[in-house]
Amino acid sequence: MASPQKLDKGKIYLGSYLLERLAQLDVRAIQGVPGDFNLAFLDLVEDHKQLEWIGCCNELNSAYAADGYARVKQSQATYSGKGTSRKTTGGVKGFAAVITTFGVGELSAMNGIAGAYSERVPLLHIVGVPSTKAQKEKFLLHHTLGDGRYNAFERAAESITAAQAFLQSTEGACDEIDQVIRIAFETARPTYLTLPTDLVFSPVDGSRLETPVIPDGFSTEDKAMLPSGEKIDDSKMKVVDFVTKEITRLWDAAKNPTILIDACAIRYGVTHLVRDLVEATQVKYYTTPMGKSALDEDPSKGFAGVYVGEITCESVKEAFEKTDLKIFVGALQSDFNSGEFSQVIGEEEKVELHSDRVSVQYANYPTVSFHTILPALAKSLKPKKVEETDASAGQAFKIPDSPVNEMVTQAAFWPMWGKFLQENDIILTETGTSAFGFLDVPLPKGATYISQTLYGSIGWAGGALLGACLAAREAGFPRRTLLFIGDGSLQLTVQDISTMLRHDLKPIIILLDNDGYVIERKIHGENRVYNDIATWKWQEMLSFFNGNNIPTRSYLAKTRGELESILADDQFAKADVFQLLQVKMDRQDAPAALVRQAKLSEKLNSS
Amino acid sequence: MASPQKLDKGKIYLGSYLLERLAQLDVRAIQGVPGDFNLAFLDLVEDHKQLEWIGCCNELNSAYAADGYARVKQSQATYSGKGTSRKTTGGVKGFAAVITTFGVGELSAMNGIAGAYSERVPLLHIVGVPSTKAQKEKFLLHHTLGDGRYNAFERAAESITAAQAFLQSTEGACDEIDQVIRIAFETARPTYLTLPTDLVFSPVDGSRLETPVIPDGFSTEDKAMLPSGEKIDDSKMKVVDFVTKEITRLWDAAKNPTILIDACAIRYGVTHLVRDLVEATQVKYYTTPMGKSALDEDPSKGFAGVYVGEITCESVKEAFEKTDLKIFVGALQSDFNSGEFSQVIGEEEKVELHSDRVSVQYANYPTVSFHTILPALAKSLKPKKVEETDASAGQAFKIPDSPVNEMVTQAAFWPMWGKFLQENDIILTETGTSAFGFLDVPLPKGATYISQTLYGSIGWAGGALLGACLAAREAGFPRRTLLFIGDGSLQLTVQDISTMLRHDLKPIIILLDNDGYVIERKIHGENRVYNDIATWKWQEMLSFFNGNNIPTRSYLAKTRGELESILADDQFAKADVFQLLQVKMDRQDAPAALVRQAKLSEKLNSS
Repeated sequence: MASPQKLDKGKIYLGSYLLERLAQLDVRAIQGVPGDFNLAFLDLVEDHKQLEWIGCCNELNSAYAADGYARVKQSQATYSGKGTSRKTTGGVKGFAAVITTFGVGELSAMNGIAGAYSERVPLLHIVGVPSTKAQKEKFLLHHTLGDGRYNAFERAAESITAAQAFLQSTEGACDEIDQVIRIAFETARPTYLTLPTDLVFSPVDGSRLETPVIPDGFSTEDKAMLPSGEKIDDSKMKVVDFVTKEITRLWDAAKNPTILIDACAIRYGVTHLVRDLVEATQVKYYTTPMGKSALDEDPSKGFAGVYVGEITCESVKEAFEKTDLKIFVGALQSDFNSGEFSQVIGEEEKVELHSDRVSVQYANYPTVSFHTILPALAKSLKPKKVEETDASAGQAFKIPDSPVNEMVTQAAFWPMWGKFLQENDIILTETGTSAFGFLDVPLPKGATYISQTLYGSIGWAGGALLGACLAAREAGFPRRTLLFIGDGSLQLTVQDISTMLRHDLKPIIILLDNDGYVIERKIHGENRVYNDIATWKWQEMLSFFNGNNIPTRSYLAKTRGELESILADDQFAKADVFQLLQVKMDRQDAPAALVRQAKLSEKLNSS
Repeated sequence: MASPQKLDKGKIYLGSYLLERLAQLDVRAIQGVPGDFNLAFLDLVEDHKQLEWIGCCNELNSAYAADGYARVKQSQATYSGKGTSRKTTGGVKGFAAVITTFGVGELSAMNGIAGAYSERVPLLHIVGVPSTKAQKEKFLLHHTLGDGRYNAFERAAESITAAQAFLQSTEGACDEIDQVIRIAFETARPTYLTLPTDLVFSPVDGSRLETPVIPDGFSTEDKAMLPSGEKIDDSKMKVVDFVTKEITRLWDAAKNPTILIDACAIRYGVTHLVRDLVEATQVKYYTTPMGKSALDEDPSKGFAGVYVGEITCESVKEAFEKTDLKIFVGALQSDFNSGEFSQVIGEEEKVELHSDRVSVQYANYPTVSFHTILPALAKSLKPKKVEETDASAGQAFKIPDSPVNEMVTQAAFWPMWGKFLQENDIILTETGTSAFGFLDVPLPKGATYISQTLYGSIGWAGGALLGACLAAREAGFPRRTLLFIGDGSLQLTVQDISTMLRHDLKPIIILLDNDGYVIERKIHGENRVYNDIATWKWQEMLSFFNGNNIPTRSYLAKTRGELESILADDQFAKADVFQLLQVKMDRQDAPAALVRQAKLSEKLNSS
């Protein structure tokens, strides 16, 4: 391993340059797993004043954690939920980094990185690789494929990252580092960087750091500037003005327009701009599953429900579909985010605002971005007095009856959480039962909701929880972090529970103990053994992973009555220690939305 | 999901065709994780009479398990260790299959598959993917990257598999299946196959199954036939004869020749041919770490130790290096398998036999394979009366003194296992401390030793243990399965302990509890926090993962005396239930070979 040499004035180690760039983006916790090709670099991480190394049990979990970290950081950057009001700091923050080692480490992280790509979460995957000499001379080293190909893992990374930098010398290295960070922001996707062992302590020009990679200009709403720092020139602004007029014309003609907020509004950090538009127009607004929590779910401010095509609960579906103009902000119409493509909306009543284009009815405007048109629309669109609906009708406030001394049903379980949630809570739901079950649970003010709806990798939420907790700790105000997850899912990534205990994090894990993969049972093989799982003693988990006996609490609710008592318990609600709530549920019971989705999925698979 | 249709006479479902091919190769346990794009195919697996579905907790673990399964199956195919004698069945068996789902599943398995590629373990990775229609129309489905690229995961797989088949229709599908299986055998590497949901129950011609993909002809020693079934023609045999004469000439002139058996001798299933050569020539033979257990480590039959360049214990190093002709069989000179390339052997005294070439001193013969020349050499080379050496000198029979009431030292720990091991034991060692520590532990007859020396992915051994146990169960005679692993390593893949309990497997896990990544401490950052790990209560593990309370035993040895008692305990030796033996060791203590290797590694990293 290279050792630090004395530096000339104005010089900085290449490894330090990279870390300073991350620090400028408000990265504080860096997740990963050590390996001999990244150890020297980890010296710099461990010694950095702003950064904290979070060593995970394995690389997949560390990638998931980085994903969760970036998402929650973003929610804290685009608005600050202190008390009850959201601030609009905007800003470019909401970034994460994960560090692995060559081959064995990076490939294990790959599915987590691919998930971030799919779901548009910007982060940087830094891989410590053998020295440039070892690479050039193709040494038959451990962690290689044994065939001299030193670029095989890079090739694999190209499939699932938006840009790659394979550093081979200090020449141009800082440019390459800046570029992979910039592209991650521009695309809202992960990028990839290899750092050879012999370059970590190579000196580079430190004065470059005075110019940030991502300018802070994006933090105010009305500047004609993209997150990349690109200024919008007059000719482009002319198009923005034109499109604004077109949309305004439709708006004025509409009786009952609405706004639907989707994934990319969150991913590209424009939720504060959407909020301004909603406030200016005073119309009802909806989200999709991936847009959930983009704005406060406050019926008094216009929130009207979560729309997912055929999966939507009846009253919300009806109300949304009868509106006569729909402005989609950041739409991402994947199967699970759209009720298996079952939205029935005519082009004539549709406006789509994206990061890289806007469409109005049949017209396409490829140079207009929601970054520029949202502020313009907030000024131009007049408030609409829209028909009153029962805004809370679609939300799961009503808890159906079921016997208190029997297992809680899925139908009763999800609405029970409405009352428990508090302002600024962070909620993670695992793909499958939890994500579908939680759809209509109303969120309090300032809450952040995250789920991996598009990519849907089971195990993601268990890993992401670590990063979410780390980000929550940086919020500057108290945030509880709740994870809803099934037993089958938690088994994939369970070991990093111990990392949360090690760092004294205090999530609440709500474990749906229903003996297997319920979403799969509903798609195919309802009674098949392959949908069963190994049986664990979940009540022992927080002891097994807790060698240092950090205080924890484990709860078991075998009946609805027991669950009600726990939810009414102030100590549980306080979340002052790591808590597990294991809830026994029937192995065939599933949320209604999941059952509907599963039938649509099975149909498509056999087509 | 497609449903089974009635089949015409002579027809078989495409999914069944694939499974029959696996069954023909003696695959019985198939590891993997269900996902909605492979569920229908899993119906066929679950209903198959020969096959058993082993659902793992996650995909990485399932790939590791398949790797372990293939390795142990191969050891049982190339010789059958019934009682004390090895049979020479040769044969083409030693294959595994792992089933995952599109994107989220296959990428999680990727590091495990890459390890099999690196280490030359033949297996087939079967990925259930969306229907051909969904692929063609680029539906924005869950598990995709959200950008319409349906080939991104295939592209990634190309980097780390020897061949790929992306089935798109039944036309040619059987050919493609046969080909990826054949190439896996020819290259001793994993291959990759995508199976769309709509093709699982498509009918294909079943009569093709009458012709095996891999002929059984390789099972006898002297047939001029490669494992692929390729007959060696007369012109090629002329070269074999020529080279045999060249080697015989050197052999006759040598005073003290020897044979060094390495990884590829095992991987290509020629260990029985090497054994015949050793028996015919009566010389001393050595192995490398990756060749360990290729032949019985029986000093009375000529076994003289494990040679790893500078890492080798002094007496073995000296004895090996002073031989005047060295026949390397299946050499694989990676850093950890060669003492960081520190073998000092002149070309003049070197013969290398490989699967695809032979070299004699400076001459290269690219058409000659060890499959053909080994039998020829066994006939041609005369027995040599070689100088007597103390064959057991290099082996760790001698246990250094250390206080019985103190922690056991690494120096004492490894030799203690010499006496405990029994005939036909299977031993897995994790990369790092365990692999280096075990180097000189003498193996009893019929033992199988596996380790991931070249690829060296931590966590591999914990996952591979499941497959090794499943294979052992198929041996037809009792085989204990022992895993030596550190606490840091077991954390990566721990959850599938529960899968072993679920299937009533009975390994002995010897856990080196030394509070972190010792191999890394020895390379760099001896006192760095990043080399520490979360603290677990290991004595609770077999309870937490054991919801059905299968009988198990957990042992804790805090002192050398306690360890000695446990090793002397007949009940422990019986291994009639799943057993964990946790051994407390000092966090800075390491085997001497590891310390030597780590210094060489650090030097190379900084060069």
